[in-house]
Amino acid sequence: MTMQQLSPTDRTTPTRGRNRQVDDRDRLLALLSDALVAHLGVSAGAHPVVLPTAFGVDASGPDEGGTLYLHGSVAAGWLAPALERDVCVTVTELDGLVLARTGFHHSMNYRSAVVIGRPRVVAEPVERRRALDLIVDHMMPGRSAMLRPPTRKELAATVVIALPLAEASMKQRTGGASLEPGDLELAGWAGQLPLRRVATAPVTEDYVSEPVPEIVLRRAEEFGLV
Amino acid sequence: MTMQQLSPTDRTTPTRGRNRQVDDRDRLLALLSDALVAHLGVSAGAHPVVLPTAFGVDASGPDEGGTLYLHGSVAAGWLAPALERDVCVTVTELDGLVLARTGFHHSMNYRSAVVIGRPRVVAEPVERRRALDLIVDHMMPGRSAMLRPPTRKELAATVVIALPLAEASMKQRTGGASLEPGDLELAGWAGQLPLRRVATAPVTEDYVSEPVPEIVLRRAEEFGLV
Repeated sequence: MTMQQLSPTDRTTPTRGRNRQVDDRDRLLALLSDALVAHLGVSAGAHPVVLPTAFGVDASGPDEGGTLYLHGSVAAGWLAPALERDVCVTVTELDGLVLARTGFHHSMNYRSAVVIGRPRVVAEPVERRRALDLIVDHMMPGRSAMLRPPTRKELAATVVIALPLAEASMKQRTGGASLEPGDLELAGWAGQLPLRRVATAPVTEDYVSEPVPEIVLRRAEEFGLV
Repeated sequence: MTMQQLSPTDRTTPTRGRNRQVDDRDRLLALLSDALVAHLGVSAGAHPVVLPTAFGVDASGPDEGGTLYLHGSVAAGWLAPALERDVCVTVTELDGLVLARTGFHHSMNYRSAVVIGRPRVVAEPVERRRALDLIVDHMMPGRSAMLRPPTRKELAATVVIALPLAEASMKQRTGGASLEPGDLELAGWAGQLPLRRVATAPVTEDYVSEPVPEIVLRRAEEFGLV
């Protein structure tokens, strides 16, 4: 398999290059827009801890390169010290399986972004409220406008973490199976099995009398409804 | 949002409990079987690096609790020192979006496993060959039996990492939107938008004259073919 998934990020090379190219930035924002879950890696003493988290994006946010907002729970008391060090957030979308004529060239098509930086706990009330709306709207565009504002109690029970999008790297694999010159003489099928995310019919809670909102139907269509 | 994604793992609590319950173990293996990509977190000096990687599972493998095999590239020279410390592997499957009457209770349905342990670079040729087959077969069951054995050169260009499944924790959210007593008086729709992975039609390489193998068609049906 040649997924090349263990190659260095910018941070691990001497140059520590930054993602300044418009092309890369557009691809980064497109990937973040497609993805629903981020994996947040923090140092928890002797080892890293990697946890899935919801997120939102403000491309023109207050941090260099724009702001990635991550959602946390106040209950996670161990998190606070971890946020005094740099963290790594990785977002991956799987696009398909790649089957070659050799095991070695079996791979996956995917897009992945790695963002490294010093996190900032969002304390300022206006930014915090906006960040929470962005996180809800990332999952379901237009949703936050349909909801009452969060209460003081709800706000107090939520931690929002901001991470600059300045230091990010992207990797992507697309297309068919790789082939060594000698592999043409091998027999056997080779190709891709493309994968995608779809929605199934929305499930309404028992206590709800309202119809499924237009934004939910639209989102389901956007994913592809099966 | 109450995804509770930032709660402590076993490792971050004083007890450092281990995943010994049969129920949990079955759920862990079921999740690993469903998932295709793992996120490997390593300490890269001052900060963690989290990278997506293909994996395979040997439930009765040589390590305590069974063995998780991860695939790497030899090119990643920075990886070697990182493997002398504990790593964290997180596997997450997203099952749906949960929309509540309040922003606070918006959430996602998901299953996530966190495995922490000291990695082992697989050097022994028989285990290494078997691990590579497991990684290929994890993606496409039955595939390795259709391929010629890896060459010495191919084997030399691949790093396989083994991680014990002994220290693992799982989290899962299922079901509908959470509701505070007062939320029944709020108006508005609440419910779930279930999400799933599907395959689209296999794409055959130009140079291939063989038909799409039965195992690929079966795998596509298993994902759901749209």
